[in-house]
Amino acid sequence: MSKKVAVILSGCGVQDGAEIHESVLTLLRLDQRGAHVKCFAPNISQHHVINHLTGEEMPETRNVLVESARIARGAIEDIREADVTEFDALIIPGGFGAAKNLSNFATQGPDCQIQAEVLAMAEAFASAGKPIGLICVSPALAAKIYGPGVTCTIGNCSETAAKITKMGGRHEACEVADIVEDKARKLVSTPAYMLASSIGEAASGINKLVDRVLELVQENDAQATTP
Amino acid sequence: MSKKVAVILSGCGVQDGAEIHESVLTLLRLDQRGAHVKCFAPNISQHHVINHLTGEEMPETRNVLVESARIARGAIEDIREADVTEFDALIIPGGFGAAKNLSNFATQGPDCQIQAEVLAMAEAFASAGKPIGLICVSPALAAKIYGPGVTCTIGNCSETAAKITKMGGRHEACEVADIVEDKARKLVSTPAYMLASSIGEAASGINKLVDRVLELVQENDAQATTP
Repeated sequence: MSKKVAVILSGCGVQDGAEIHESVLTLLRLDQRGAHVKCFAPNISQHHVINHLTGEEMPETRNVLVESARIARGAIEDIREADVTEFDALIIPGGFGAAKNLSNFATQGPDCQIQAEVLAMAEAFASAGKPIGLICVSPALAAKIYGPGVTCTIGNCSETAAKITKMGGRHEACEVADIVEDKARKLVSTPAYMLASSIGEAASGINKLVDRVLELVQENDAQATTP
Repeated sequence: MSKKVAVILSGCGVQDGAEIHESVLTLLRLDQRGAHVKCFAPNISQHHVINHLTGEEMPETRNVLVESARIARGAIEDIREADVTEFDALIIPGGFGAAKNLSNFATQGPDCQIQAEVLAMAEAFASAGKPIGLICVSPALAAKIYGPGVTCTIGNCSETAAKITKMGGRHEACEVADIVEDKARKLVSTPAYMLASSIGEAASGINKLVDRVLELVQENDAQATTP
C-alpha cells in the first residue's frame, strides 16, 4: 500500500516563504517513490514580503496558505483541516518561511515559538512515532517539537547550531548530500540550501531524506504487522 | 566545455506565471547535466494576479521579473540584459504566464502577440540556429517565433492545437513522457502539465526535452569544429 505523507509549506520563495526548489524536489521524490502527498499550510499572514530581486521588504501583505498554493498547484489545505491519523509521515521543507511564518526563529532565535497549529501537527506525528523529515533551516524547530536531546543538522553553520544547542537540541554537522537521523525519535534532517551551491546538490540530500523517511514508514508498518 | 542555457520565466505560479514544477524540473535537469543556466524575465506587470487557492483574481499587481526571482532564488536578470551570443540554447517553461505575460495567447488566441523583448530574444536564438525548448503551453508561441510550418506539440488538447494550426504551425499529438522535434528548426517541445497528472509525469517529458536540447547544442558544436 502506498504511503501517505503530509508536507507543510510556509509560503512561496526562499526569503519569506518555503524554499521553492526544496519543496518541489521533495514533492518530486515522494511522487517518484509512489507516495501519496497532501500539502498543508497555516492560514496566516506572512511575517513580511521580500522582493526576491532586490532583497528589500515590500509594502504589502500576503497569506501563507494562499502563496503556498502556488507551489502545490492549488492542491493544498489549511493546516487546521489536517487529520494526522491519515498520514504515515511528515516533511517540512526549508526557506525562511520556516523561521518567519511557521515559527519566529528568525527573530527570536532560541526563545522562538512555533505557530500553534504547526506545533500541534508536528507533535502529533512525533508522539505517534511517525517519522518526520526536516529540511534546511526547519530542523531549528526540532527541539521545540521533540524536547531536549533531539539530534538534528542544519549543515555546518556554527551560529545556527549554537542556537539549536541552546534550545536543548544536539547538532551534528552534515554534508549537503547526507542526512542526520535521530533513530529513537525517527527524525531525519538534511542541510539542503543551508549548504547547497546548486539545485543538484540540494536534490542529493533531499532525495536521501525522502527515501529514509519512507523506509522508516515501512519499518513502522513491519512492526505493526508483526504478531 | 559546459553548455550555457538561457531560461525565460514568466512569473511564479501556474495560474498567472511560470509553472513552478516545470521551471524547477528544468533547472534541476540542466544542472544535473552540467549546463550553466541563467534565468531571465521581462520587467513588466503581470497580466493579473490569481489566488492559487481559490482560482479567483486578486486586486493587486505584481511584476513578472520580481516574482520570477522567487523561482530563481534571486539569480535572474531583466531580459533586456540578455546577450544571446553568450548562450547555446533557450528553454521556456510553461504555466499561464507564457500565455498571459510573455504573450497574450490566453486572451487573443491565434491573433496573439509575443512581448517584444521575449520575441526578439527567441528570434535571435532561432535565426542563429541555436536550439529552443518549449514546455507545456509555451509551444503556442512557436509559429510567432519561427513563422508558418513549424512543428510543435502541446499534447492532445484539440482546442489549443487548432489555434496553433490557425497561426500556421503544425501540431503533432504527443504523450506526456515524450517530445516532438522540428529537426530543421531545432525546436523541441513537450506537453508537461498540459497532460501530466503528477510531477513525476511532468519530469519524464521535461528531462527528455532538456537532454535533447543539450544534444542539439553538441551537434551544433560538432558542426562548428568540423573543418
